[in-house]
Amino acid sequence: MELFKSTIASITNLDEEMMKKAQERQDLLIKPKGSLGKLEEISIQLAGIYGQEFYDTTKKAVIAFAGDHGVYEEGVAPNAQEITKIQIPNYVRKITGVGALARFANADVYGVDVGVNCDEILPGVINRKIRKGTSNMAKGPAMSYDEAIFSIEIGIEETNKLIDAGYRVIGVGEMGIANTTPTSAIISVYGNYEPIEVTGIGAGLNSEGVIHKANVIKKSIELNAPDKNDPIDVLAKVGGFEIGAMTGAILACASRNIPVVLDGVISYASAILAIKLNPLSKLYMIPSHFSAEPASKKAFDLLELSPMLQMDMRLGEGSGAALCFNIIEAANFTYKNMYTFEEAGFTV
Amino acid sequence: MELFKSTIASITNLDEEMMKKAQERQDLLIKPKGSLGKLEEISIQLAGIYGQEFYDTTKKAVIAFAGDHGVYEEGVAPNAQEITKIQIPNYVRKITGVGALARFANADVYGVDVGVNCDEILPGVINRKIRKGTSNMAKGPAMSYDEAIFSIEIGIEETNKLIDAGYRVIGVGEMGIANTTPTSAIISVYGNYEPIEVTGIGAGLNSEGVIHKANVIKKSIELNAPDKNDPIDVLAKVGGFEIGAMTGAILACASRNIPVVLDGVISYASAILAIKLNPLSKLYMIPSHFSAEPASKKAFDLLELSPMLQMDMRLGEGSGAALCFNIIEAANFTYKNMYTFEEAGFTV
Repeated sequence: MELFKSTIASITNLDEEMMKKAQERQDLLIKPKGSLGKLEEISIQLAGIYGQEFYDTTKKAVIAFAGDHGVYEEGVAPNAQEITKIQIPNYVRKITGVGALARFANADVYGVDVGVNCDEILPGVINRKIRKGTSNMAKGPAMSYDEAIFSIEIGIEETNKLIDAGYRVIGVGEMGIANTTPTSAIISVYGNYEPIEVTGIGAGLNSEGVIHKANVIKKSIELNAPDKNDPIDVLAKVGGFEIGAMTGAILACASRNIPVVLDGVISYASAILAIKLNPLSKLYMIPSHFSAEPASKKAFDLLELSPMLQMDMRLGEGSGAALCFNIIEAANFTYKNMYTFEEAGFTV
Repeated sequence: MELFKSTIASITNLDEEMMKKAQERQDLLIKPKGSLGKLEEISIQLAGIYGQEFYDTTKKAVIAFAGDHGVYEEGVAPNAQEITKIQIPNYVRKITGVGALARFANADVYGVDVGVNCDEILPGVINRKIRKGTSNMAKGPAMSYDEAIFSIEIGIEETNKLIDAGYRVIGVGEMGIANTTPTSAIISVYGNYEPIEVTGIGAGLNSEGVIHKANVIKKSIELNAPDKNDPIDVLAKVGGFEIGAMTGAILACASRNIPVVLDGVISYASAILAIKLNPLSKLYMIPSHFSAEPASKKAFDLLELSPMLQMDMRLGEGSGAALCFNIIEAANFTYKNMYTFEEAGFTV
């Protein structure tokens, strides 16, 4: 509880002076002002986050949290629950989507077990298991209030370790069969949306499956009546361990002046919770891609963020965050390496 | 005329067998089918373009064509016309937006003068000047019919040289103060749009300037009455030399089985002309980003293509194409390096 409170309390505004310097530099580079759009915005945001006019973005990692979901037993996902425990070690082996994209971007991948439904220690994965999956939210709260805070604190702790190790850009990822179900529940609660409006095929449901999933979400919200004024209550009642841990990762990055790259729709739910816990945390977020899940548009409306990539991706894992790393580095590279009008010898 | 005809005639369908093989491989990789969205689509498109199940995409270039515009004298652009001749050598020096982004992506940049308003040979730039800028389309055709074909043939020839030199991915770029004016004219003609619907700030006009620019476009279209059934007539009457040359570059790539990466709104005009000349050329196009110019949405409606990047960029140059190179390579990398279910030892 102490780490949770102190982390939230230590998130500050961005460094306005450095952002002004970065803006001034951008306006001197040989291009019409603002014509590089989000590449310029990111370079300025990073100056504000790091508190430096020039900064390094080469050391990058995705931290992916894995957890299982009691609501799986309601038949909301097309795949075997065992895929959670099979896949999270594969992330770290860099043979999955996020793994390959991280390799491509010269980034590392860390996997953290916060609640996988297995007894064994998963190879290469950091073991911070809370318990073997949440409870079924269609029958009661997914977790206790204390567990919800604990899941966030694990995310904070593991992310702080990466920041201590020198990582300068951190992307969040997840693994958890059925986790678009709690995700849609959280987005539904915060946007007052009917569950069917924010429920998608996940890893490949048919249309009947989507309707069933939306009904399970609706039932879970009605049964648990989460209090949207208390994000911990929402996380506890209709969330997941990995969703809480990602919220913690976002808060840790914000408190330590490190940009945090969002991934797909699960991470949007975590981002919404982080913003509810401290609105300043949003300043540290870099949205990567617009997920193909139908909740995306509504989540971005709530977040008031605009992603860079429109790839129709719906893999999760942290794959969109990893793909975005190169764009962030491109933003930094152009900012540093384009010539100013003066350097280029402009006379008109 | 011979090269123009033979190039258009030699564009074929993609290799269906290789696309099927690539699709089959994608479906074996450890992810829900289709969940990597456009990354998967690109990997399959490239297999079809190259006619190979596996292929190399490392050798990349942007070819940027520079030309001036007689319509500049109508006051449609906020900047000095001399910027065309100043900037195209800077592309090749890699100090501009496209230059820096090409360096970042490990790509080369070629500049071709097809009509810059200057007498001197521009340093580092290939000299294929047709003449020193088009005529003022508000007073008559921008160029003759023969010049229009010649501009396309120059684009074909210079692009063929790059393909002969081993480039495997080619992006198109341009430089030409005032060239959003002919661009909007072409898009207006093909979409039956009122010019004001497809006219934007270009390099930074104010709102009065935008209205004036739209009026100039309207007047030019009415005066010249381009025949939309003849793309060469449209290019000649309300186009530009660099727009024609980019059309040639697209046709050359399509005829030689090389993917061509579109850039911003100027390149959309070139792409529309290429598709009108041979609809199969579209199969070889990879749209990169959604330009901040208002003509973008309407141009993509015409092209029926969906870009990957939403960066609010409006620089042109080929900068969006260069930024997209990394995504294309990421698509190839995941396609090659992700494990199949079997390789990963899946048992569920």
